[in-house]
Amino acid sequence: MPLNRSWVASANTPDTDFPLNNLPYGSFRAEDGEPHCGVAIGDMILDATALERDDLLRVEDEDEVFFFGDWTEFMALGAQAWDSYRAALTALLSEDAAEPEALVPYLVPQAGTTMLMPFTVAEYTDFYAGRHHATNVGTMFRGAENALPANWLSIPIGYNGRASSVVVSGTPVTRPWGQLKGPEDDLPRFAPCARFDLELEMGAIVGQPSEGMVDVARADEMIFGYVLLNDWSARDIQAWEYQPLGPFQAKATATTISPWIVPRAALEPFRTATPARERPLLPYLAEPGPLLYDIALEVALAPEGGAETVIARTNMNQLYYSAAQQLCHHTTSGCPMRVGDLLGSGTISGPDRDSRGSLLELSWGGKEPLTLEGGETRSFLQDGDTLTLRGAATGDGYRVGFGDCTGTVRPAPSDPLAP
Amino acid sequence: MPLNRSWVASANTPDTDFPLNNLPYGSFRAEDGEPHCGVAIGDMILDATALERDDLLRVEDEDEVFFFGDWTEFMALGAQAWDSYRAALTALLSEDAAEPEALVPYLVPQAGTTMLMPFTVAEYTDFYAGRHHATNVGTMFRGAENALPANWLSIPIGYNGRASSVVVSGTPVTRPWGQLKGPEDDLPRFAPCARFDLELEMGAIVGQPSEGMVDVARADEMIFGYVLLNDWSARDIQAWEYQPLGPFQAKATATTISPWIVPRAALEPFRTATPARERPLLPYLAEPGPLLYDIALEVALAPEGGAETVIARTNMNQLYYSAAQQLCHHTTSGCPMRVGDLLGSGTISGPDRDSRGSLLELSWGGKEPLTLEGGETRSFLQDGDTLTLRGAATGDGYRVGFGDCTGTVRPAPSDPLAP
Repeated sequence: MPLNRSWVASANTPDTDFPLNNLPYGSFRAEDGEPHCGVAIGDMILDATALERDDLLRVEDEDEVFFFGDWTEFMALGAQAWDSYRAALTALLSEDAAEPEALVPYLVPQAGTTMLMPFTVAEYTDFYAGRHHATNVGTMFRGAENALPANWLSIPIGYNGRASSVVVSGTPVTRPWGQLKGPEDDLPRFAPCARFDLELEMGAIVGQPSEGMVDVARADEMIFGYVLLNDWSARDIQAWEYQPLGPFQAKATATTISPWIVPRAALEPFRTATPARERPLLPYLAEPGPLLYDIALEVALAPEGGAETVIARTNMNQLYYSAAQQLCHHTTSGCPMRVGDLLGSGTISGPDRDSRGSLLELSWGGKEPLTLEGGETRSFLQDGDTLTLRGAATGDGYRVGFGDCTGTVRPAPSDPLAP
Repeated sequence: MPLNRSWVASANTPDTDFPLNNLPYGSFRAEDGEPHCGVAIGDMILDATALERDDLLRVEDEDEVFFFGDWTEFMALGAQAWDSYRAALTALLSEDAAEPEALVPYLVPQAGTTMLMPFTVAEYTDFYAGRHHATNVGTMFRGAENALPANWLSIPIGYNGRASSVVVSGTPVTRPWGQLKGPEDDLPRFAPCARFDLELEMGAIVGQPSEGMVDVARADEMIFGYVLLNDWSARDIQAWEYQPLGPFQAKATATTISPWIVPRAALEPFRTATPARERPLLPYLAEPGPLLYDIALEVALAPEGGAETVIARTNMNQLYYSAAQQLCHHTTSGCPMRVGDLLGSGTISGPDRDSRGSLLELSWGGKEPLTLEGGETRSFLQDGDTLTLRGAATGDGYRVGFGDCTGTVRPAPSDPLAP
């Protein structure tokens, strides 16, 4: 598929994340001080809330879908509204648009604009669908023979995370306190996390609710779009707490998502198949077609005041299970899914050392520290470090990206109970 | 503390769950077809939504707190509003009230009234604070030597559950499908759960939000009230899925809560201390006073068309950690807590066989089936079984209870994907 040209010139450059082919959804702090819904085009944001207010572009038959500056209401309207609004946006921003001048006052520069959470997270589930990641972590924790859990090749396993801790790119992340118990400790201590980490993931946003079980094809249709997702992880807290009930406080400090939700429609040209199955899947998890996406991903780390180093490069196609399979499995028990549920893919590591999506893996549990440009080394994150995830699918002369998904680590408070 | 007498005669009988000392909060389907907020008194419900609408009883300085028939907005107002409204209710329903006649039109009989979810569950966390339960389950799964997980005496461990699956008493519960793998199976199957179970728990409802960590005393103040809670559990799904990320679909079918939220204030006279500590707790978990409650609990099982058998009797005082300690621990990572968060205590089993809060324990993994009145036996739940949890604290001539927390098991669909 070629580039769709827009009258917004910056949308036609090959290095923008936001050509007309993309049109991702975000929320921003508008000049009136309120959250507005926006659509990224080149280096600008089209103000969907103001366009609706001024009756220049509405979702068909609907009033005030964007009044609160959050895309949740829009998602709830369903696929027909998603398609017709996207078609209307495409027409208005195309280089063939009849009256582009009318839209110019509704364009806000991305530079200097504060981005906000683009939707209300109903519940957050984090999966574990990266085979290299599961194998690496399993090898470190349980030895090479028991690396992959027995159920891993049959179940897209996951756990419920904490929706209240999901934040938008740019939000600082404070190093947590927690219960830690190292191999030399007889008893646990309450102390700041010393092994604070990132996890490079994709997030799928559920845009339609379910009652009862849904099949994989329907699950795919329920997905509104995708974000980049960094599931910040306190490895020392995790090691002591996670048996037998799974990760809890180790994953509850923050999960950062990209400012832009790339609609599923924008990713259609980049669909790719999950890998060959070592163990046949149960029939309910069979895929009706390619359900993953070919999205190149990278992680960059910049020490405070220092230059950025890309510490990992990988691809979403390294996942063993698609979001649609995970969502289908999530409904098997009858669990009702809701508009705004967020599904983390699990950490996406590739086969090579420099394609690993967490510092735990990159430094092999701290035994092989990374060297950054400038000479500093890292086993885990240090205060002041800024982490940035980037991702894009590449078409013929254009790319479809998510914008930077970034966060800076703030020091732990000296007393976590001080107000 | 003696009985506070009410002009509602049924509230003065020793066997009611709802004397004037209680005044629990619920939601019900009113005559106008809409959800209304209600307060239980004897065998009646006082219609708080109608009293507010008619300007007979308002929360101080507030309009339309009860308009939507849900107590979430009231909780968000905080402790001063909770206290003043409770005091006003107490005065209006007391036998010394000036004009009881004016309230009579606002009383609805509980019998025949449909109860609804009394609040909007923000997120649901299930803990594991019953020592006998953890020991029993651990013995069955890992052997007597490894029964209690290494972290159990230090951490009030828990996992995030699924808020969308929380339902009010009376809602039927459909036996789930899921991935199962028995000891004789080479590969997992997708089949209806054959080991469907209950878990007798208490639920604490978080009525105030947090930012950053809170101490145990503040956590206690944030708790609005308590409910009975049945965390329905698919043991065969759980056994195959729960390593290493914890329970997921096994716990996502349904969690049933009692129709009435008993305010913390009504339980004050029944406070009791957690047990002696085998291993000293870290200082952040120290209790400023007694934080548990002496609440007698029971589980009754009635086969379809058959008589009820009480299969377990225990007490909330069997918990090792209080809800305030769990809530404090929940915030250690900086995890933001929100109005409407629900915290399950964990299954409350006592030391004796007939004080075990799950069929998994009562039938010792199915090896020692229970015999019900009428002669039927049970290892796990059968279709048509009705489970009822009951609980009450006993004062001087009165009891403070929660109403029946009940649910009937419906058969699994023959095809879970059939519409």
